Amino acid sequence: MGTVRPDAQRRAGRPPQGVLSRTRITGAALELIDEAGYDGLTMSALARRLKVAPSALYNHAASKQEVLRWLQDHVMTMVDFSAFATEPWADAVRSWAWSYRGVFARHAPLVPVIAVLPVTDAADTLRMYEEVARGFLAAGWPEDRVVPAIVALESFIYGSALDVSAPSDIFDSGALAGEFPLFTSAVRSSTGSGGNAADAAFRAGLEGLITGLDKQLAD
Amino acid sequence: MGTVRPDAQRRAGRPPQGVLSRTRITGAALELIDEAGYDGLTMSALARRLKVAPSALYNHAASKQEVLRWLQDHVMTMVDFSAFATEPWADAVRSWAWSYRGVFARHAPLVPVIAVLPVTDAADTLRMYEEVARGFLAAGWPEDRVVPAIVALESFIYGSALDVSAPSDIFDSGALAGEFPLFTSAVRSSTGSGGNAADAAFRAGLEGLITGLDKQLAD
Repeated sequence: MGTVRPDAQRRAGRPPQGVLSRTRITGAALELIDEAGYDGLTMSALARRLKVAPSALYNHAASKQEVLRWLQDHVMTMVDFSAFATEPWADAVRSWAWSYRGVFARHAPLVPVIAVLPVTDAADTLRMYEEVARGFLAAGWPEDRVVPAIVALESFIYGSALDVSAPSDIFDSGALAGEFPLFTSAVRSSTGSGGNAADAAFRAGLEGLITGLDKQLAD
Repeated sequence: MGTVRPDAQRRAGRPPQGVLSRTRITGAALELIDEAGYDGLTMSALARRLKVAPSALYNHAASKQEVLRWLQDHVMTMVDFSAFATEPWADAVRSWAWSYRGVFARHAPLVPVIAVLPVTDAADTLRMYEEVARGFLAAGWPEDRVVPAIVALESFIYGSALDVSAPSDIFDSGALAGEFPLFTSAVRSSTGSGGNAADAAFRAGLEGLITGLDKQLAD
């Protein structure tokens, strides 16, 4: 039998203090959403995943809203916006947009959540916006047009991130091909050239947006 | 007491034949998603909402995939693409895109679903794409560039439809305003002019895309 050592006893009872952290909670929340969609993220499901009582979770995260803000900050730190400090505006937008789309394509269930989530008190997210805004202003954008242009780019990026997970035969008209010959033929000719359809659409749209926004600025 | 009339008796038993239809099933599915998000749509929840046994529902709709295809067709028939038959390309794209965004802004939970749903056998959806493709081809677009351009526009439209439901204070930096002065000031100056922030961003991006895509075509 022997004596039970104090630390073994503590471990058998409840997890050691400090086992919960913003990093661990955020990681578990991301796993839940990636597995079961946004509706899979509840505070009780999160506590179960972390193997703690809901009350222990609430000691660290005041609300689901706080977890979402951490999640937003966590994901936004993966977006590379460094080019705004060094490159001309068009190159910086291009580099940032491809990185941003890549991050959200890997976490598509987050798109509808983050697209409408306030940035209030999300320091890492605000850091990105601050540097992007600095790049726009340095390129001569009037202050009142910076945010609409950023939001327009983000809307395109979010929609394109969803498109990455579309099946490759999304535009297969099936048995109705004969009724819709123009579209059917256009689909065949665009996929016939090989390559990634989502990348081709993203490139066409992003280059179009960069050219068009740049022209708006010049006008 | 009196005698039970035959039609009352039938009504008390089960609903009359034909009570289920593609239209009723589609309407109920749309209600479920708008109320409870996409995860709210299951065949059993749909049967409950329609007050029929699941087996009765399956007699009409072979699968959830079929219900989704009906839903896609139903929503796409609300999108006005008529301008492609009568207006110059840029005006037609503008008119179609505003209508398309409006429809999906009213049904935002559908965005992540429809964005990745195959159009196979969805006749009304294919009818829209056929007329949009006809408009692009008539404007001189090379066949292999039609679909990437349409997908780019749709990605922007879907992302913008999500943005419509963002709270108006989404970019309020809160207590961190002092740390991020450029972005905070840009947000204030863009909202200070009044008007709808989502509309301003959509207009800036759509006009940019139209200009930029048009320029790609000319190059």
